[in-house]
Amino acid sequence: MAERNPEKILLAHGGGGQMSDKLIREHILAALANETLSKLGDSADIKLPAGQIRFTTDSYVVKPLFFHGGNIGKLAICGTINDLAVTGARPIAVSLSLIIETGFEIALLDKILESIGQTAKENNVEIVTGDTKTVEPGAADGIFINTAGIGLPLENAQMGFDKIKAGDNVIINGTIADHGMTIMSQRKGLEFDTPLQSDCAALWPLIEQLLDNTNGVRFMRDPTRGGVAVTCNEIARTTAMGLELYEDKLPVNPAVRAAADMLGFDVLNIANEGKFIAVVAPEAAQKCVDICRAHPLGKEAAIIGKITKPTKTPLVELVTNIGGRRIVQMPYGRELPRIC
Amino acid sequence: MAERNPEKILLAHGGGGQMSDKLIREHILAALANETLSKLGDSADIKLPAGQIRFTTDSYVVKPLFFHGGNIGKLAICGTINDLAVTGARPIAVSLSLIIETGFEIALLDKILESIGQTAKENNVEIVTGDTKTVEPGAADGIFINTAGIGLPLENAQMGFDKIKAGDNVIINGTIADHGMTIMSQRKGLEFDTPLQSDCAALWPLIEQLLDNTNGVRFMRDPTRGGVAVTCNEIARTTAMGLELYEDKLPVNPAVRAAADMLGFDVLNIANEGKFIAVVAPEAAQKCVDICRAHPLGKEAAIIGKITKPTKTPLVELVTNIGGRRIVQMPYGRELPRIC
Repeated sequence: MAERNPEKILLAHGGGGQMSDKLIREHILAALANETLSKLGDSADIKLPAGQIRFTTDSYVVKPLFFHGGNIGKLAICGTINDLAVTGARPIAVSLSLIIETGFEIALLDKILESIGQTAKENNVEIVTGDTKTVEPGAADGIFINTAGIGLPLENAQMGFDKIKAGDNVIINGTIADHGMTIMSQRKGLEFDTPLQSDCAALWPLIEQLLDNTNGVRFMRDPTRGGVAVTCNEIARTTAMGLELYEDKLPVNPAVRAAADMLGFDVLNIANEGKFIAVVAPEAAQKCVDICRAHPLGKEAAIIGKITKPTKTPLVELVTNIGGRRIVQMPYGRELPRIC
Repeated sequence: MAERNPEKILLAHGGGGQMSDKLIREHILAALANETLSKLGDSADIKLPAGQIRFTTDSYVVKPLFFHGGNIGKLAICGTINDLAVTGARPIAVSLSLIIETGFEIALLDKILESIGQTAKENNVEIVTGDTKTVEPGAADGIFINTAGIGLPLENAQMGFDKIKAGDNVIINGTIADHGMTIMSQRKGLEFDTPLQSDCAALWPLIEQLLDNTNGVRFMRDPTRGGVAVTCNEIARTTAMGLELYEDKLPVNPAVRAAADMLGFDVLNIANEGKFIAVVAPEAAQKCVDICRAHPLGKEAAIIGKITKPTKTPLVELVTNIGGRRIVQMPYGRELPRIC
């Protein structure tokens, strides 16, 4: 009977035969069933009201798989929702593809699938199609997850680098570096009096409110790998304008600050998984912050900087607490492997 | 300068910073650039004429990465095209997500990307969005690829298990087991006088001709993992009808037959990557075979079986060369790990 009810993933679970079928029906469908996915076709149909869709994909290799505030499954769904949300598209359908190392505990897989199902449900997106592969021990690290997502662009969301103007304000919806520092602290085995917690969250509910109730949002992006530093540098470089950040306005959880200092990281380079950077017209900035602060995902929102002016050498500068200025460089990239 | 022009993948290539940017621009965009992908957004816009799309995903973990007749990149694009094509949907856009082990040779990555670009171009699909993650040595096996695909269902393609009727013919577009036996032979270091070659191919051009020029195609599926045995068992089980296969009609490359016999495999269980099983009305069967045989992807097409009748115990039976009958079981699943 062991083979009929295995506690660990076997190679045969990815072989396309009886065992694959069992895994899909008894675990994946048990957690994620909906009318479309349950057909178990090679592909899924999605009915659309509009003639344009938005499409995104990400693979997730985060280590550890379970962290304070989330796990790889929740992260995958939130990440794909956020990639659509920051472009002003309502996420509607997600694909789910698993690469699982033989020997992985099925109980852990079930926990991950449960998070995936719950996060999708909370955000009104459906997991509509999927795939499961298994690899031998040592050929992967537990489980890797890919999600691709389809969204419907909101008509009133006209955002893009090309909409950004000198004088625009830069807003963030809360504290920075929570996700990356949580992951790094757990990897290093660090414990703090106030445990760090990832900000892993799906941002569409808040972004939808912002876009529905204001006109001045000109650009949004989620500062994941490479953190606020990467997103701000991309804005400066692509618009060929300077960008100023105010250190005293940047919301940082004190425990995150302490962990970053201890481990030698700059919080500006650290990944977030429940934050957006928005560039907004100055006259709309305070209203945007107010809307954020009234929402659970934006309680510590703040205006953290501004777009200065067109320049041949577009830089991101941090105005420090003591009034100095330093350049915030594009990170090299090796700061935090396997953060998402 | 080594870091500026590395020959191997570094963790920093997946970090979201300068090195990620360099990898994306100098290698990925160099191979795959198109108007949409080159925007390097978090997501891509796809304009659609219709109000319905079809969506699919697959991850690829094939080993070895390069095999006679293809590589993991070509396989990923063909596989995703085929998953859409067999449902009667024209493939239009594909996402590409890479998980790469640190130390992987960039020259090999370039070869894989070149195949991806070429296969996409030949089939008029665009790679529109993507993602790249790196993991430390030993945390993955070289490279894993995920593709998700979007297709437009053809209006005249009304296919599904529910369209299948007793008396329908079962067609395949050519020899079976080529892909799986090529992979296994290469893994075992076997050489044959006539080298085995994977059938890895994108089937949409042939399937489009079939659907445009006949009315009787009732169901299609690509017999990949688990081979013809899995696909036929799925048909029998889902329709609750018997399915008969004729051993003397099954096209098998003699070298593939020899390799399967030598290694103890049943060719019916072995994966194909450029084949479809079609269930067609008996009056349309010969025309379907003729259309296939006039096309490079279907030269050895044949009627290989038929749907018998409704039954409470739907089985797949093989009518053997000597007139006997044996049941073709649903494979267990462990026959061929990492075949795709």
